[in-house]
Amino acid sequence: MYQLYAFATPNSIKAIIALEELWLDYQLHAVDVRQGEQKTEAFALLNPNAKVPVLISPGDKLVLTESAAILVYLAERHGLLLPPDGAACARVFEQLFFHASGLGPAFGQSGYFQKSAPEVMPAAIARFHGEARRTLALLDRVLATQAYVSGDSYSIADIAHFGWLWRREFANIDFSATPHVARWYEQIAARPAVQRAIARAERLKS
Amino acid sequence: MYQLYAFATPNSIKAIIALEELWLDYQLHAVDVRQGEQKTEAFALLNPNAKVPVLISPGDKLVLTESAAILVYLAERHGLLLPPDGAACARVFEQLFFHASGLGPAFGQSGYFQKSAPEVMPAAIARFHGEARRTLALLDRVLATQAYVSGDSYSIADIAHFGWLWRREFANIDFSATPHVARWYEQIAARPAVQRAIARAERLKS
Repeated sequence: MYQLYAFATPNSIKAIIALEELWLDYQLHAVDVRQGEQKTEAFALLNPNAKVPVLISPGDKLVLTESAAILVYLAERHGLLLPPDGAACARVFEQLFFHASGLGPAFGQSGYFQKSAPEVMPAAIARFHGEARRTLALLDRVLATQAYVSGDSYSIADIAHFGWLWRREFANIDFSATPHVARWYEQIAARPAVQRAIARAERLKS
Repeated sequence: MYQLYAFATPNSIKAIIALEELWLDYQLHAVDVRQGEQKTEAFALLNPNAKVPVLISPGDKLVLTESAAILVYLAERHGLLLPPDGAACARVFEQLFFHASGLGPAFGQSGYFQKSAPEVMPAAIARFHGEARRTLALLDRVLATQAYVSGDSYSIADIAHFGWLWRREFANIDFSATPHVARWYEQIAARPAVQRAIARAERLKS
């Protein structure tokens, strides 16, 4: 059975959603990042990078980090949520990497400099909040002409973007300027697997 | 024939290396980011995100952005530099996403706040230079026990990490504290395909 170490975080929720969408059996282990549990010596044995989520796949004797790598692994192993090859597959990876290198870091740094930094740095806030809004506007443009972020089908790229957009309040972002993202978000959030995943993630906090 | 829009940048070099490693025919088009050519209306038709590289694959009628998505596409299409599935494949994606979401952004922001920001923000410099050194130390730990970043074989994950480490001076980073990275870097840099790629990238500047 899969073992997932996670918390109610933007990156953890991605892995939980994928496990729920694929109807896989898994055990969920809370790593309370509010208490810094991801920085303990015990957790470093699972991930020296001190981040959740971490997936253990006993069948492959694999301890896997990086939420998007977990999405790709589960999708390939179970043959769902990722087209096998060609242009449709390339579009999924394009969005996965746009999220991982663009939208995700922008949202994370925007939140950090607005809410967690040791001092107020207006130029840094402007940089990252601007980048968060810019990358969200790019996603809105994609969603203006297609149902899902990588094309006509739901994929792991939708799950990846959902992670940070679910936690958009941290970055002080809303959907008022991005109606297509708003439409897509409601659609993803209404999926039964996503609702089950959010319920399980929220229970980790109690 | 593939068409690549690129410049002598950390992300562009990745795509050029992959094309050279796979002995593919391609035409290289310079997008002079020093002149802001990636922000023109003409380039926005290729990539609304205003970034290089962009690959055009006529056979698949595909215009593809995101350097790591280009690496995955070329590797899957030509059946090289990426194990087909299982744990070995998962390790490649783990490193691709660690680069895309961790090391790459840390190096980029470290360089920006040290060299390009409108004002000196010591706390932001400390944050990102510290994160660049931390992520490089994590990579050094990986390379202490294996030849390549994802295991015993050269893969597109090595190509991805090479991109930013080739431009480490921008982030004000050297290899004095990471001997295993230094050993690996020399080995990758000595590959004939990598040398051809660097020569082609440098010629774009003239």
